[in-house]
Amino acid sequence: MDEYSREELLRIYLPGYQNPKIAALGGGHGLSNMLRGMKRYTNNITAIVSVCDDGGGSGILRKDLGMLPPGDIRNCILALSNVEPLMTQLFDYRFTEGSLSGQSFGNLFLAALNGMCPSFDEAVKRAGEILSITGRVLPVSNQNILLEAEFENGQKIVGESKIFYAKKENDCRIREVRLIPQNPTALPESLDAIRDADMIIFGPGSLYTSIIPNLLVDGVVDAVRASHGVKVLVLNLMTQDGETEHYTAEDHLRAIIEHGGEGLIDVCVANSAPIPEDLVRTYEKEGAQQVLTHNDEFQKRGIRTVLAPLTHCDQYVRHDPDMLARVLLDVLYKWHA
Amino acid sequence: MDEYSREELLRIYLPGYQNPKIAALGGGHGLSNMLRGMKRYTNNITAIVSVCDDGGGSGILRKDLGMLPPGDIRNCILALSNVEPLMTQLFDYRFTEGSLSGQSFGNLFLAALNGMCPSFDEAVKRAGEILSITGRVLPVSNQNILLEAEFENGQKIVGESKIFYAKKENDCRIREVRLIPQNPTALPESLDAIRDADMIIFGPGSLYTSIIPNLLVDGVVDAVRASHGVKVLVLNLMTQDGETEHYTAEDHLRAIIEHGGEGLIDVCVANSAPIPEDLVRTYEKEGAQQVLTHNDEFQKRGIRTVLAPLTHCDQYVRHDPDMLARVLLDVLYKWHA
Repeated sequence: MDEYSREELLRIYLPGYQNPKIAALGGGHGLSNMLRGMKRYTNNITAIVSVCDDGGGSGILRKDLGMLPPGDIRNCILALSNVEPLMTQLFDYRFTEGSLSGQSFGNLFLAALNGMCPSFDEAVKRAGEILSITGRVLPVSNQNILLEAEFENGQKIVGESKIFYAKKENDCRIREVRLIPQNPTALPESLDAIRDADMIIFGPGSLYTSIIPNLLVDGVVDAVRASHGVKVLVLNLMTQDGETEHYTAEDHLRAIIEHGGEGLIDVCVANSAPIPEDLVRTYEKEGAQQVLTHNDEFQKRGIRTVLAPLTHCDQYVRHDPDMLARVLLDVLYKWHA
Repeated sequence: MDEYSREELLRIYLPGYQNPKIAALGGGHGLSNMLRGMKRYTNNITAIVSVCDDGGGSGILRKDLGMLPPGDIRNCILALSNVEPLMTQLFDYRFTEGSLSGQSFGNLFLAALNGMCPSFDEAVKRAGEILSITGRVLPVSNQNILLEAEFENGQKIVGESKIFYAKKENDCRIREVRLIPQNPTALPESLDAIRDADMIIFGPGSLYTSIIPNLLVDGVVDAVRASHGVKVLVLNLMTQDGETEHYTAEDHLRAIIEHGGEGLIDVCVANSAPIPEDLVRTYEKEGAQQVLTHNDEFQKRGIRTVLAPLTHCDQYVRHDPDMLARVLLDVLYKWHA
């Protein structure tokens, strides 16, 4: 187990890292937060985003236009974009009235490009060009995929957006998630990016609905194993209500191994900074606790644990994008040294 | 009456015109076609666009979001934009499925900006920045305006999009159009642009639904009269079904004078090129004829008539943007010489 202080993180000499190739797998806000920090140090970033979302504005467009869900991709493009604030504000704008109420303009942007382009990944590529992004954003697959969850009591539910309530109803842990159809084809570029990466990052993000779905796409775990890159799991700071209540760091790891097999993680990056008590209480009310790390199971499996003060706390507990990028790049450097 | 040949138009030395200030009033495709040609020769263009449209995608957004109609403004922004073709294609993209079917992405773009900005003209300005336009596009007013038409039989109809069918039903000419509310406030920038212009251009475009509505906004005709600029009416090539069937050039002029008074037009630019017979027949079937010019009434009122071969005919009869810009700039040059 390695532990960094804040001062050590700030002292790391990053320009020496020569633009390493990063493949980041996930979805949701956690991934985009990490990308926001990482793009300051390398432009060889590929964000590989899950496409199971079927709720909110994404779900509406999915049903209405038969397109893949744009929401998580929109967030990653925003995180990596380098255009004037106006354009990113616009991309993030949500309509508040009429039939478009709740819909994000960035989703409609991707929907229009999807209508113009021969495939969804091509539409995502064009959006990245227009928003002048550092790196690339790729859907893990161009196939229309649904997520099914099976709970420990044997109950099943189909549809990512329904898992939250189904978990509340069944009141037990998720045993397994599956894709429908099983083993969908990965986007070849996504597999190439994973194989070529100097570092493969899982998370931060929703364990069962953002991270694990990527592992279930055909060829992804093989590409991860075939890569020379260091494989890093960035642990979430807090558990997620309706998904990972009371999960420890070891529970997160176990879920990944149960779905993807052994050999997918070399290093586990966890937060060492205490979380302010009032925030802990607020999160507790929303059914979320701090993710605790005990190290034993990691050590037993030969996985290195790296601790660092990674939080940025205001109204929420989030990863500090710069601190997270710094510790990840130091892990990468030391691994390949 | 002056007449230009195609060779004379091509010989005009345009770089000598030193970026004249142009104010173009109208709406619809005619105006945007003219702008497309004019922007090659000056970047001091202000397109002043009517905001009465209540049909199609614009009408839906108007009702749904309470915003001003974006469609005509979108076309002018497109005509003046200088970004990569991808961005303009995107702006012009129409959804073909689901609840957005028929809606243009550019309209949604303006709708999102309208939601973010304190006023509609500010949203239009920001869209122009993002699409890097030559010149400016301004709504003639920031007020919510409806158009009412009264026919020669005394019947009335409210709503621009309803005039076409109401005219068919009443089977007589439009006597007058009015704005509801009467005398809405003009955007001060629009009035300034008219007053400062070296040339004020009316049309080409729909006489009663694009050109005349601008004249009914408070202060517009006074600004036109106060301007030192030459005032030019670009006559439409063909009459418009449901609006100006069998109108001659003189009928067009008379309608403008009846709504805005005398002294608004110095020069009338009309086409001299014959229109291919098969196209004439096609248009005839759709209730549109060539607009004929007799010059007498123009001469009587002291209005100069300028004839030039201005058509670009393929599937439709349209103004050739470059030829139209050339003749207009020569008119301007000779007027101020």
